[in-house]
Amino acid sequence: MNPVEIIKKKRNGEALSEDDINYFISHYIKGRIPDYQKSALLMAIYFRGLNDEETLGFVKAFINSGERVDLSHINKPKVDKHSTGGVGDKTSIILAPLVACFDVVVPMMSGRGLGHTGGTLDKLESIPGFNVHLSIAEFVKNLEKLNVSMIGQTDTLTPADKKIYALRDVTATVENVGLITASITSKKIAEGSEGIVYDVKVGNGSTLPTYDKSKELASKLLKTSKDFGQRAIAILTDMSSPLGYAIGNWAEILECIEIMDPKRKVSPLSKDLVDVTLYLAGGMLQLAGKCTDIEQGIKIAEEKLKSGECFEKFKALVQMQGGDVSLIIEPERYPKAAFSDSITAAEGGYLTELDALTFGLAAVNLGCGRKAVDDKIDYSSAILLSKKLYDGVNAGDVICEISGETKKQVESTKKMLLKGIKISIDKPQVKGRIIEVIN
Amino acid sequence: MNPVEIIKKKRNGEALSEDDINYFISHYIKGRIPDYQKSALLMAIYFRGLNDEETLGFVKAFINSGERVDLSHINKPKVDKHSTGGVGDKTSIILAPLVACFDVVVPMMSGRGLGHTGGTLDKLESIPGFNVHLSIAEFVKNLEKLNVSMIGQTDTLTPADKKIYALRDVTATVENVGLITASITSKKIAEGSEGIVYDVKVGNGSTLPTYDKSKELASKLLKTSKDFGQRAIAILTDMSSPLGYAIGNWAEILECIEIMDPKRKVSPLSKDLVDVTLYLAGGMLQLAGKCTDIEQGIKIAEEKLKSGECFEKFKALVQMQGGDVSLIIEPERYPKAAFSDSITAAEGGYLTELDALTFGLAAVNLGCGRKAVDDKIDYSSAILLSKKLYDGVNAGDVICEISGETKKQVESTKKMLLKGIKISIDKPQVKGRIIEVIN
Repeated sequence: MNPVEIIKKKRNGEALSEDDINYFISHYIKGRIPDYQKSALLMAIYFRGLNDEETLGFVKAFINSGERVDLSHINKPKVDKHSTGGVGDKTSIILAPLVACFDVVVPMMSGRGLGHTGGTLDKLESIPGFNVHLSIAEFVKNLEKLNVSMIGQTDTLTPADKKIYALRDVTATVENVGLITASITSKKIAEGSEGIVYDVKVGNGSTLPTYDKSKELASKLLKTSKDFGQRAIAILTDMSSPLGYAIGNWAEILECIEIMDPKRKVSPLSKDLVDVTLYLAGGMLQLAGKCTDIEQGIKIAEEKLKSGECFEKFKALVQMQGGDVSLIIEPERYPKAAFSDSITAAEGGYLTELDALTFGLAAVNLGCGRKAVDDKIDYSSAILLSKKLYDGVNAGDVICEISGETKKQVESTKKMLLKGIKISIDKPQVKGRIIEVIN
Repeated sequence: MNPVEIIKKKRNGEALSEDDINYFISHYIKGRIPDYQKSALLMAIYFRGLNDEETLGFVKAFINSGERVDLSHINKPKVDKHSTGGVGDKTSIILAPLVACFDVVVPMMSGRGLGHTGGTLDKLESIPGFNVHLSIAEFVKNLEKLNVSMIGQTDTLTPADKKIYALRDVTATVENVGLITASITSKKIAEGSEGIVYDVKVGNGSTLPTYDKSKELASKLLKTSKDFGQRAIAILTDMSSPLGYAIGNWAEILECIEIMDPKRKVSPLSKDLVDVTLYLAGGMLQLAGKCTDIEQGIKIAEEKLKSGECFEKFKALVQMQGGDVSLIIEPERYPKAAFSDSITAAEGGYLTELDALTFGLAAVNLGCGRKAVDDKIDYSSAILLSKKLYDGVNAGDVICEISGETKKQVESTKKMLLKGIKISIDKPQVKGRIIEVIN
C-alpha cells in the first residue's frame, strides 16, 4: 500500500477499504505518513464524502488508536449528550448534573470553543480551580462516586481523532458530514456511553450550512452509533440566534446557576435554554430507561431542576473537580470586566435577526474565545442579551450589553454586533427551538 | 489574510484574487505556510480548478519567486518545445540541435522521468559525462556559442513551482489543467523563450485521462503563453502506444543517433518518431519566422536532418556539456544490460494494442525510471519493440525485447507487458500521430 494511491482512490471517487483506512491512520499516527498527505486526503474526503462503511472504518481506527473507558462494573445506565456546537449553548452545564440525579451515569467528555462556537470546557474553567484534565482512572472514580464527571478528551482516548481534528481545523476540512460523524461517535463510544442524545444544531450559528446537511449529519450519527450498539436519538434544534441570554464563559455559568439554584429567579430571557435543556434531559432519561417517552422525561427532569436537587449535584460536581463552590453560591463575588457598553434599538419594531454566527464571532473578538490556539480567554467578558429574537422593541431600548477587558475590544465588538441585529416593522412568525426528533 | 480562509475560499468554489495567490505562495516559499495547508489548497484546486485570471496569478507568482533568464542581447529568435510527457518520447534529443541549425536559439530546460513517463534529463545523463546541472550564466554562454543548450530547471528559476511540484507529486494533485498550465508556462517564460510549441499528448500514455482534458490543457497553455507575450502553438499528438521503437534511456539516445547520423540506417519502426519530430520542428521554425507554415518547416528540417548537419550540432552539444562524444560516434561500445528476454506473438493477427501506460510502468519496473525520488536508474535497461501498433504478426514473431540488470526484473517486466499487448484478427484502422494543431 502507498499513501498517494490511497489519496488518488478517494480523489477519484472510489470508496476506501477498511485496510486502506487502517493503513493510512496507523501510519499517520506513527509519523510515517506526513501531515501534507493526510491533509490532501482530508480535502479529497471533503469533496467526495465517506459512505457508511468508510465512516465505520474511520470510527474503528480512531477508537483502536487509544484506550477505551470501561464502565461495565458500574451497574447503571450510562448516557451522554453531544451538541454539534452553538452560541450561548450551555445546556451541558445543567444537563449533566440533572440526569445524574436519576442514578444515570453521565460520562461527559467535552470540547473547547471552536471558531464562533463556545466550549463547555472553557465555561467550566471559568470557575476558579475547576480541573477538566483528569486521567481516565480519576474520571471513572468520579463517575462511581457521583454518577457524573465533566472532563476534556484525554490524550489516551482516540488520539488519532485528536491529531486529525487539529489538522482539519487549519486546513478548512472541518465541515464534512462523514468526518464530523467519525470524530464525534468515536469519542462517545470510547468514553463508555451506552446511550447518546445528539443535539444537532440547524441554522447560521451551527457548524453546517444548511438544514439538509444538519439532517444528514443527524442520520449519520444515529446510524453509526447504532452500528456500534449504542442507543441513540438525534434532536435537531434551532441555532439561528444565541440560546439563553448570556454569551461568555462565566456569564453562561451564572445563567445556569440562576436556572439551577431554587433561591434565584430565572430570567424570562432563559426560557428557550430551559426548554432545550429539559428536552435533551427527556431524551437522555428515555435512553436510560427512566421514562417511557421524552415528554414524561421532561416532566420528571423539571421536578428535579425546581427542587434544587440538580443544583446540589452541580455543587458536588464542582467541589469534586476542585472548583470554588463558594462562587457558585455567591456568584456576585466574581470579578467584573473593566469596560462595558450597550446596543440600543435605533427604531421601534420587532427583532427579526440576532444572528448567532455574528454574536459568536463578536464574542471571540471580545476575548470569550480564541483566535489562535494559545490565546488566553477573558472569563468575565460577555455579551448579555436584554431582548430575544422575535421580541418587540421601542427606539432606545437596550438590546444587549457588552463587557470586556479593554475599551477597544468592547467598541470593535459593538461594531461587529450591529451587523447581526435587524429590526423590522412586520411582526415575525415565532418558531420554537425544537425542530425535529430522529430515532 | 489567513491561509485557512484562502483554502476555504477555493474549497467553496470562489476565485482567488492575485493578492490571495501572492500571499499564499510567498509565505509558503518562506516556510511560513506549512506543506499541509498548501496540499489542502492544491486538492481544493484539483476539484475546483483555476480560471484564467487565477492561472495567470500563479504563473506570475512562480516567475517572481526566482530569477529570469535574460536572452535579449542575443539577436536571434528564441524558441522552445514542451511535451506533456509520454513513453518512448525522445523528440527533444533531435529537435533541439535540429532547430538550432537554423540560427534559432533553443533554450531547452527539461525534466526527469515522472510516473510512467520518461524524462529528457535522464536520457541525456545516460551519455557518460553529460552535465545537465548548469548555472544560468553557463546556460546563456552555451546558447551564445551553439544556439542550443539542454539543462534541468535550476534552483533559482521558478523555485516556487519546483517546491509545489514536488508536493503535488506526493499528494495526488498533479492532474489538474490549471496547475499543469501554471507549472509549464512559468518555466517556459522564465527560461527566456519568445516562442513555444506545446506537444500535448492524448491517450492512455499521457498525463491527462481524456482527449477533452488534453484539448483543454492545450488551449489553456496557448492562452497563458500569449497573455505573457509569447508566440505559441499546440500540437495534439497520440500517445496511446510508445513513440519510436526504444523505451529506456540509452536505447532512446541510440534510436536518435540512428535518425541523426547519416551513416546509419533509420529503422522503419522509428517512422512515427521522425514524423512527430519533424512536425514539431516545423512548428518551431514557423514561430521563429524561418518558414511560412509547418509543412515548409518540415521540408527544410528534413533536409538538415538528412544532411548530417543536425548530427554535427548534436555532437557539438554533447561535447560542450561534457558528454563522451566517442560513444555518440560508436554507440556499439555502450555497456549492455546483463539479462534479456523477448515477448512473442501467441497467435497471428494485428497488434491492436501496445498500451503506452503499461509499457511506461513496465519500463520503470525495469529500472529505466524511478519509483522513489532517490532510486538509481539503469541506463542500459530497455524495452525494444520489434513490431509497432497496427502491424500484422504471425504466431511466434517477436513483439518486443526486454533487457535489464537482473533476471527477476526482466521476468516481472515481461509479465507486466503481456497485459498491455493485444492481437486481433480484424485489421485495425490505422491512425496517424498528429491529431490536431491549435493556434
